Parts: sequence; C-alpha cells; structure tokens
Amino acid sequence: MDLATLIGIVGSFLIIMGAILLGPNAVIFFNIPGLLIVIGGTFTATLIKFSLSHTLGAFKVALKAFFHKPESPSALIDEGIELASIARKGGLLALEDKEVKNEFLQQGIQLCVDGHDPQLVRRMLSKDINQAIDRHDEGQAIFKAIGDVAPAMGMIGTLVGLVQMLSNMDDPKKIGPAMAVALLTTLYGAVIANAVALPIADKLAHRSREERNNKSLILEAISAIQEGLNPRVMEDLLKTYLPGSKRKAVKKAA
Amino acid sequence: MDLATLIGIVGSFLIIMGAILLGPNAVIFFNIPGLLIVIGGTFTATLIKFSLSHTLGAFKVALKAFFHKPESPSALIDEGIELASIARKGGLLALEDKEVKNEFLQQGIQLCVDGHDPQLVRRMLSKDINQAIDRHDEGQAIFKAIGDVAPAMGMIGTLVGLVQMLSNMDDPKKIGPAMAVALLTTLYGAVIANAVALPIADKLAHRSREERNNKSLILEAISAIQEGLNPRVMEDLLKTYLPGSKRKAVKKAA
Amino acid sequence: MDLATLIGIVGSFLIIMGAILLGPNAVIFFNIPGLLIVIGGTFTATLIKFSLSHTLGAFKVALKAFFHKPESPSALIDEGIELASIARKGGLLALEDKEVKNEFLQQGIQLCVDGHDPQLVRRMLSKDINQAIDRHDEGQAIFKAIGDVAPAMGMIGTLVGLVQMLSNMDDPKKIGPAMAVALLTTLYGAVIANAVALPIADKLAHRSREERNNKSLILEAISAIQEGLNPRVMEDLLKTYLPGSKRKAVKKAA
Amino acid sequence: MDLATLIGIVGSFLIIMGAILLGPNAVIFFNIPGLLIVIGGTFTATLIKFSLSHTLGAFKVALKAFFHKPESPSALIDEGIELASIARKGGLLALEDKEVKNEFLQQGIQLCVDGHDPQLVRRMLSKDINQAIDRHDEGQAIFKAIGDVAPAMGMIGTLVGLVQMLSNMDDPKKIGPAMAVALLTTLYGAVIANAVALPIADKLAHRSREERNNKSLILEAISAIQEGLNPRVMEDLLKTYLPGSKRKAVKKAA
Amino acid sequence: MDLATLIGIVGSFLIIMGAILLGPNAVIFFNIPGLLIVIGGTFTATLIKFSLSHTLGAFKVALKAFFHKPESPSALIDEGIELASIARKGGLLALEDKEVKNEFLQQGIQLCVDGHDPQLVRRMLSKDINQAIDRHDEGQAIFKAIGDVAPAMGMIGTLVGLVQMLSNMDDPKKIGPAMAVALLTTLYGAVIANAVALPIADKLAHRSREERNNKSLILEAISAIQEGLNPRVMEDLLKTYLPGSKRKAVKKAA
Repeated sequence: MDLATLIGIVGSFLIIMGAILLGPNAVIFFNIPGLLIVIGGTFTATLIKFSLSHTLGAFKVALKAFFHKPESPSALIDEGIELASIARKGGLLALEDKEVKNEFLQQGIQLCVDGHDPQLVRRMLSKDINQAIDRHDEGQAIFKAIGDVAPAMGMIGTLVGLVQMLSNMDDPKKIGPAMAVALLTTLYGAVIANAVALPIADKLAHRSREERNNKSLILEAISAIQEGLNPRVMEDLLKTYLPGSKRKAVKKAA
Repeated sequence: MDLATLIGIVGSFLIIMGAILLGPNAVIFFNIPGLLIVIGGTFTATLIKFSLSHTLGAFKVALKAFFHKPESPSALIDEGIELASIARKGGLLALEDKEVKNEFLQQGIQLCVDGHDPQLVRRMLSKDINQAIDRHDEGQAIFKAIGDVAPAMGMIGTLVGLVQMLSNMDDPKKIGPAMAVALLTTLYGAVIANAVALPIADKLAHRSREERNNKSLILEAISAIQEGLNPRVMEDLLKTYLPGSKRKAVKKAA
Repeated sequence: MDLATLIGIVGSFLIIMGAILLGPNAVIFFNIPGLLIVIGGTFTATLIKFSLSHTLGAFKVALKAFFHKPESPSALIDEGIELASIARKGGLLALEDKEVKNEFLQQGIQLCVDGHDPQLVRRMLSKDINQAIDRHDEGQAIFKAIGDVAPAMGMIGTLVGLVQMLSNMDDPKKIGPAMAVALLTTLYGAVIANAVALPIADKLAHRSREERNNKSLILEAISAIQEGLNPRVMEDLLKTYLPGSKRKAVKKAA
Repeated sequence: MDLATLIGIVGSFLIIMGAILLGPNAVIFFNIPGLLIVIGGTFTATLIKFSLSHTLGAFKVALKAFFHKPESPSALIDEGIELASIARKGGLLALEDKEVKNEFLQQGIQLCVDGHDPQLVRRMLSKDINQAIDRHDEGQAIFKAIGDVAPAMGMIGTLVGLVQMLSNMDDPKKIGPAMAVALLTTLYGAVIANAVALPIADKLAHRSREERNNKSLILEAISAIQEGLNPRVMEDLLKTYLPGSKRKAVKKAA
Repeated sequence: MDLATLIGIVGSFLIIMGAILLGPNAVIFFNIPGLLIVIGGTFTATLIKFSLSHTLGAFKVALKAFFHKPESPSALIDEGIELASIARKGGLLALEDKEVKNEFLQQGIQLCVDGHDPQLVRRMLSKDINQAIDRHDEGQAIFKAIGDVAPAMGMIGTLVGLVQMLSNMDDPKKIGPAMAVALLTTLYGAVIANAVALPIADKLAHRSREERNNKSLILEAISAIQEGLNPRVMEDLLKTYLPGSKRKAVKKAA
C-alpha cells in the first residue's frame, strides 16, 4: 500500500474520531439505525445503478489500486531502449527470449515476435488501452456513485427524523436530543462521501492516468522498435513522457 | 431481472419503510396531497420536457434494461471466430445458413452475405450503433429529468407549506406538526430522485455501455470476417474487449 | 401543440394552484411586489445576458417548438427512396418537378438539380445543419438562463425580506407573516425555473435533437441520390435512423 | 451600447433598489464594512486567480462588448460577394484598392493580394479565430470567477457575523438586527453574482459566438474568392450562416 | 512573484482578519481543534486522492507559478524570426551556436540541428506540450481537490458540533457560544477553499494556458524554420498569437 493512502485513511479516521471522543456525549454519535439507513440505502441504490458483480468488482479494483504500485516511466524507458538495441542487432525474433516483467510490454513484444503488421499491432494495443480505461472508469463511477448517494441517504434519514420530531413536540426537553439524532445520518453521509468514497474514486482516476501514461509510453516504444527507429531518437521521443526535472537527471547520469 | 436490481429496489424500500415504521407517528408520513404535488408535478414537468410517447417509452426501456441481460462478450467472441472459420472455408455466402441469435450480429452477417462493400457495411453498422446510443441517451435523459425535477417539486411543496404555516401561527402547538407536513414533500422528492429515478438512469447508462461494447465488438468481428483476417489474429484482436482476468481464463482453457 | 406539452403546462398549473387554494391563507400567495422582483429581475438579467431581439426571438422559437411537429423519419425515408427511384430513371434533373414539402429536403434537391458537386452539396447542407443547431442552442440557452436566474432573484428577494424583518422585530406576532412573505419570492423563483423555464429549455433541446436527426437523414438521402446508390441499399442505410421496433414494422409491411 | 444591456442594467438596479427603499429600514441595507468584505474579498481572490493586467483587461473587454455592435452577417455576405465579383473580373490584385471596413476581412484580403497559398491563408485566419476565441474565453472566465467568488465571500461575511452574534447573545433584542447585518453580505454576494457578473460573462459569451460566426463566414468567403468559386454558389454557401427567415427575405428582395 | 498574486493574498488576509478583529469576541475565531479538523481532514483526504509525492509536488508547482513569469509571446516571435533569418543564411546547422534562453525553444532548435525529420520534430514537441499540460492539470487537480474537500470537512466539523450541542441543551446560555464554535469549522472550510485553494488552482490553469500558448507558438516557429518559410510570412503567422492591439503596436514600431 502506498504510504499516502495509509496515512490518509488512518489520519482521517483519527481526526474525526478525535473530534467526537474529545467532545461531550460521544456515545450519541454511534447510532445503529442511522448507520443502517445510510450504509444500507447507499448500498442498495448502488446495486440498482450497477450490477452485483460490478459493485463487488469495484472494491477489488480499489484494493488493487491501493496495493499495486505502477512501474516508474523511466524504468520502462530503459527497458524499451534495451529491447530496441536487441532488436536492432538480432532482429525482432531475438526479443522472444528476453524476459519482460510488465504484462502490457510483454504482450506488445509477443505481437512483434509473431510478425504482425505494425499497424495491426498499434490497433490492438490502442484498443487494449481504451478498454482498460473504460474498465477503470467503471470502478471510479461506482465510488463516485457512492459519494453522490450517501449524502442523499443521509438527508433522507435526517428528514425522516425531523418529521418524527416535529410531529411530536410535547416534551421540549426531548427536542434537542431528537434533532441531534436526526442530524446524525447527515453526518454519516458526509463522512462516507468525503472521507471515503470520493477520495477513493479520485485515487482510482489518478492510478488510471498513471497506467494510461505507462501504456501509451509502451505503445510508443513498441512502434519505435518495429519501425527500427534509432535508439537515441527513440530515447528522446520516450523522454517526453518524463517531467523536465527527471529528464535532466537522466542526462547527468549519462 | 438481474439480481442486483431486485435486491436494490426491495432493499431500498425496506430500509426507508423501516426507518418510518419503527419510529413514532408513522401515519403522518403518508400524506396524499403531498404525494400528489410531488409525483404529479414531476410527471407534468417531465411531459413538457419530452413528448408523451417518449416519456412512456422511457419506462418500457427501463423495464427492458432490468429484465434483458446482455450477452457475454466472450460468447460473442466465440461465435465470431466460428463464423470467421466458416467464411474462410466456404466463403461469405456460407454464413447464410448459420443461425445467429444476436440481432445485431445477424444484421451484420446478412450485409456480408448480400455482398455489400466492407466500407458500406462498416458505415451502416456504425450508424446503427450511434443511433442506438442516442435512443438510450434519451431514456437516461428522461429518468435524469425526473431525478432533477422531483426534489424541486418537493421544495415547492415545502415552501407552500411553510408560507401557509408562517402566515397562521396563532396556535404554537400546531407549528410542529404543520412544519412536519411541510417537510414531507421534500422527503418525497429526495426519495423519488435518489432511490428511484437517478439509480434507474445510471442503470440505463450502464446497460448502454455494455450494449455499445458488445456492438462494437461485433462490428470489429464483421470487419475481420470481410477482410478475411486470420482467425487467430482476429481472436487476439477481439480479446482486447475482455478484461485481463477473463482473457487468461480463456487461454488456460485453450 | 403536441398533447404532452398541453397536459404538462395545464397540469403543473393546476397542481400548484390546487396546493395553494386548498390550504389556508390562499390570498397571501399573490404578492405583487414579490412577483415584480422575481419576474422583473429575471427579465432584466436575461436582457443583459442576451440581446433584446434574441430574448424575444427565444419565445418565438419556443412557440414554434410547441406547435410545430417534426415530420416522422419513416415518412422522410419513403420520400427519399421515391426521389432516388425517380433520379435513377430520369436523372437528377427529373427531380425538379417533384413537389417536396420538407424545406431542407427541397433545398438539397434543388442543389442536386443545379448540378453542384456532391462534396459541395454535402458541405453546404452540413453547414446548414450546424448553423440550425447553433440557433436552437441559443434558444435553449435563453430559457436555461431564465431557469438559472429566477431562483437567484427569488433568493435575493427573500434575503431583502429577511433583513427587513430581522431589523424590526418589535412585534413577535408579525414575525410569522413577514417571514411568509419573505419566502414567497423563493417560491416564485422555484416555480418559474422548475415548472416553466427549464422544462421549456429541455423541450427545445428535444425538438432540436429530432430536427437534427431528420436533417442528417435527409443529408444522407441526398448524398445517396447523388452517388446513384441502389435504392434497396439506400433503404437499409436510412433505416438505421429508425428504432429497431419501427424497422421491423416496415419489414412486415413490405 | 445596445439597448438590451442598458435596459437590463438600469432595470435590475431599479428593481432591487425599489424592493429595499419601499420597505422599512432601508438604511440598514447600506453597510460599508459588509460591502468592503464582499467587494474587496472578491477582487483580491480574482487577482490571485488571474493577473492584474488580465483582470483590468476584462473590464475593457466588457465595455467593448457593450458598446461595440458586431456587423450583420448579411452585410458581410453582400461585401464578400462584391469582392468575389471584383476578383473574378480583375484578378486577386484588383482587391487591393477596395476599401473594406471589417478588420478581419481586410486582413484576409491583404493575404490574398500578397499572393499567399490558399492553404496558408486558411491556416493563418483559422489560427486568428482560435486565438480570438481564447482571449474572449479569458474575459468570460474572469467575470465567471467573480460570479463564483462573490457569493462565497458573502457567505464568509455572514458566517463571521453569525459567530460574533452567537458568541454574544446577552441582549435578545440585539439578536434580530445583528442577524440582519450578518445576512447582508450574503445579499451583496448574490446581487453582485446574479445581477452583474454572471450576466456580463454570458453577454461576453454571446458576443464571442457572434464574432466567431462572422469570422468563420469571412474565412469561408476568402477561401471561396481564392478558389474562384462561382459567386452564385458562394452566395448559397454563405447564406447558410443566416437563419432561414432572413435567407428568404434576401431571396424576395432579389 | 507577480504583483497581482501578492496583492491578492495579502489583501484577502487583511480583509478577513479585519472583519474578525474589528468585531466583538475576536478571540473566539481562533479555535485550535476546529482548525485541526478542517486542515487535518483536508490534508488526509487529499493524501488518499493523490500520492504523497504528488501532493507535495503540487505546492512546488504552485510556488513556481507564482514566482516564474512566462516570457512574452512577442519576445518569442522576435527570437523565432531572428533564428529563421540565421537558418536561411547559414542553414540549420548555423543555429547551433546561437544562445537561446527559452528551454523549449532550445530543445526544438537542438532537434533541428540534429537533422531530425520535420514530422518527427513536430511529433516530439507536440508530445512534450501534451505531457506538460497533463502535469499542470495534476497540479490544478490537487488544489481543486483541496477546494472541494475543505468545505466538506468544515461541514462535518459543524455537524459534530451541532450534535454535541443539541444532545446537551441543559443550560440555554451555553447554546449560543456552542453554536458559534460549531459554525467555525464551516467558516474555516469556506476560507481555505475560496480565498486560498480555488484561486491557486485557477492561477495554475491560467499559467498553464500561457505556457501552452507560448509552447505552441514555438512549435509553429520551429516548423516554419525547418520548412524554410519566408520570414515575413512566418512573422504574419506567428503574430496570430498576439492580441490585435499588440500586433498593431509592432507594426507601428516597424
């Protein structure tokens, strides 16, 4: 798990729990029916929006995004240039024996080795990238949906509580606590949306951008290898995928 | 009906009804005039936005989306490869006798058998996909409109109730219940929007994406058959429509 | 006027008036200064946003959208095929005598008869479609602007009322009615936006989509006529503009 | 200044001032500290968002949009056709002596006279159009930013006022007036955004669309002149830039 | 640091501090637990959304945007034309000795000197521009995320405070101050979002537009140099990157 996510999740939890526990009446914040309304309602509305397999799949995608760190673009560039050198010396077939860790790069190399037309290889790899983006977008969409629905369910719970309280105001002393309980579902909805679901949706989008960047770098490298581009030109071309600061670092090292 | 939708709809209903029935004064929540304002106003505003036939058509589309499960992409890939093998052996005309369940695939095969130009076939099928998307977008648009209008009508109902209550505050005891009733239309609007209309709109969008994915897979397969692409290359090309995990499963089975 | 719009407008009016008239203090809801603030302020802000001629033009466009029903795509397809048959028999010039009701189709036929280059015809008709879309978008934009401004003006009116009430709370009995009056402008703004302006904007968008669909069908038909496409192929091509259900109906009839 | 904007600005001012002056306690509405918070805070936040020169430039752009009326497309079409006739008779060089008022048309004619390649002329004029759009978008962006920030600053002012009031509620009689003052910044923010900044942003967008339409009409005319297109065909082509109603008027006049 | 940002940041601070310090009970506004909830919660949620290195990197990008002023387009045009004249006289290799301050221009010149194919140069520089935009978008995204999360965290803090206050209303005198404290987190969230994070996000977008404009001007210049375009034509082409007013100024100076 990358450090930022760990710090983020634990930190958010500690901050909100701290605000509750350090204040008076901490026990009132843990309201089982309210939690059931918000979490249950959010889950059922999400089930209507997507299918069961997609909803459960989204949690798998999220876990993968937290634990799986994408390869660094500079490592991929180095690997691509190495492969290009091999191909220039021994032909595309020489790439067959080379072990490649990155799955997408492996797949592209295999297509080269199989002797497919450069245009077809490009088309297949591009389609693959687009399909992967679509699947990631679905994962984000589910967490975004949770982030939209949870506050709405919180508001519904609060409205139900307010109507119950207002229709029965005989004892003024009970008004305060009843309203406090009514507000709890709004609080739950806000916490679920803003401290959990929406940050995860954004993390998935972030990971998706990184992966797409890596994959289009690989696509570029495979194309260059098939075209037999000069490795130095290829390096210049691939380095456009790095931020300026990292490019220089490579230069100095060279 | 897919299981997720069934669980989702029944579950949402049970959760909200539970919150109401387990609380005090359950009977106050069923307010016929309030329901008429929100449901009626939402329906009439939706009628202005669209036409009668489109509004009613949207419900048909929604029902179809709930009960009709799209074919799995892997089954379509298998069928496409089988058709490609037949066409390679016996020519495009040999496809005529093959029974094909998927309507869009059938339509594409028919165009091949009729001997149309590959480019024309592509143009007709692409247009078909775009038109289908437009029709699905209309269905979503109607449920999204309902999800936008219902809370607004709820707020209008609440404002009317508040003005009536505020202009007539002689008996302080009546203020609570009157305000409770005024809030009900906001509650109705929120429930209609967030537990019914918007989830259905999102489900339609989800189904639309699945169908578009299937249809563009079929378009790709038909193009490959007409081009006489090698079935193994075609398989590689079509498998880009599957998520990585399913692709491997097919490999192992092979 | 299409039935849906009539039902929608009359229905919305009856529902909101019913809620007001069946409650107590119906007379308080008709507040001339409040109406002047919301309607006047909305009108003046819309005038700043657009020009006088565009604002008035938008109402003309809206009326036209309500009373003018677009031709059915299937009638246009039949007419297009008939024209194609005439052109195949007697050449493009034979189309000159054919009476055509649809203005855009007439214009396209005229361009064919005049012997313009197919590419130029396509370019002129495409430009025409895009310009029509731009003009429709302007109409929608004006009603959407009204729908955005009216609630804002309602809120401004309510804020003015609240400040007046709060700064002068000597007689507690007057607080209720004063607040009721203050809330009225918010109610007016919500009704104007959600029951009038936004539905009309959506109806214009809906009509615009229908018209664009018809026009691009006609453009396709004109192109096919100029290319001398086989009428049966042309029919298949144009039928992609119909939903699946209607396509079959035509097939059965054939 | 076009009439609509004048009526709109004066009218909005009169309506809001009327609501204030005709009510009680008009003097409370003019609160210097509140105005300073909202106007000052909006100005400083806008300065962070853009640069000083852009912020001041936006006001110049706005003034120009109010006072500068774009030429009518039909006048431009007439001028374009006249130029085309001259060019057909005397060659492109004959255009040199023709006086042309519209700057963009003048610039295009100059490029023709200079004997540049049609493709280069198209590229330069297209780039010019896109750059002009970008500059207009910046102007709109600044007024939209003001329209976003002003209500936020109004809310900040109100929150500050509420906290001050709530923390010091010894004298219940002061609560009302204190809350009235606190609400004033929200009112100022809403007025600045909805009656001033957002309408101006929309007017700039409207002017920008008109100018882009005119410029692309001119680009089309210049291209047609360079291609030596038949003036009658050119007229048909350019008339697609007019709404249907105006096109007919020209026909009748012809 | 550009003047506008300095004035903006100091001014916003002074305005809000002024409103607080000139009012009563200034000390209540500085609430450490409230600040911790809003700032801490915003930071942890942002960490989940992005990675630690990106979050910290965003602050570096922001500082750079404040202190680094982009070159003026007219200076770049002059430099480009000078380079074009050198290349016309001495060939592309003559550019090697010319010192160029702008990094991107330097990089483009180097590619020309290296004798790369014009199309490859265009492809590499375009990719570079797109990658730079993606990186800038990431910086904006982080500040936009802060601007979205801070008000949500403020609301969560206020809800926690309200629930604590409502569940414990024994002493009516404490209600006011308790509610004041509860409102503080909403105030903090609004200030962080509207006076800090969102303005910085917009400034980054503004800088990004300027840089992209400069870079595409340079790309155009490099292309023109490689094509050996006439310097006068090149000047006309590049001047489309200047607003009309500045173009004239150059003309007069010429």
